[in-house]
Amino acid sequence: MCVFCKIVDGSIPSYKIYEDQTCLAFLDISQVTLGHCLVIPKKHFENIFEIDEKTASILFENVVKIAKMLKQNLNVENINILNNNGKLAYQSVIHFHIHLIPRSENDNFTISFPTNKLTQTEFIELKEKITKK
Amino acid sequence: MCVFCKIVDGSIPSYKIYEDQTCLAFLDISQVTLGHCLVIPKKHFENIFEIDEKTASILFENVVKIAKMLKQNLNVENINILNNNGKLAYQSVIHFHIHLIPRSENDNFTISFPTNKLTQTEFIELKEKITKK
Repeated sequence: MCVFCKIVDGSIPSYKIYEDQTCLAFLDISQVTLGHCLVIPKKHFENIFEIDEKTASILFENVVKIAKMLKQNLNVENINILNNNGKLAYQSVIHFHIHLIPRSENDNFTISFPTNKLTQTEFIELKEKITKK
Repeated sequence: MCVFCKIVDGSIPSYKIYEDQTCLAFLDISQVTLGHCLVIPKKHFENIFEIDEKTASILFENVVKIAKMLKQNLNVENINILNNNGKLAYQSVIHFHIHLIPRSENDNFTISFPTNKLTQTEFIELKEKITKK
């Protein structure tokens, strides 16, 4: 059983923020920044390729709810919502989860965004490839 | 009118991947990695603190749908889903949007995750502060 399934069944304790039939939210033990929370489905799905749309939509409703709680109660005005799928995307626990990472001037959480220039033809080919099925 | 509202009304062209009554998905012009898409609500919401839960849930259903399209059609196995809110969280266009960023061995998109150690008492205080209202 994975560590998040153990948190769901209570055999590993957690600092719970929110719970309903479908999902659970709790403080991330690593606290990338102060107030860092995770929202997970209670049912085990490995990643975004496996989760069903209905469960994902309930999770994201709750992400919005918790972001608003963080704003109201911790005065969070800046936040990254992040979901990592696969090792190359930094997924460590193989149970679908969404991070809420509040941001402030002096935190050390950083993302670097490269850019890639495509020609119009390359954009059209890419769009057609993605939408072919 | 913001640049994404102009994409919605068609006055700025885009490479569309998906569209329904509530949302639009298109290729990000910066292509942080190849296949980088955005999913946006057609209605203008600045950020996650402003968007309603219903609209957000429809958006995320579509994020799952598009992630599966990227897997099926571009063989994407690793992906970051990212939503930036506020300048300190790298939000550039002030119209709510969710990034889908496919990952591969040789891309230059990087995230660094610091960690912060909290005592049990600090975790409990933080949890109580977040859930007080």
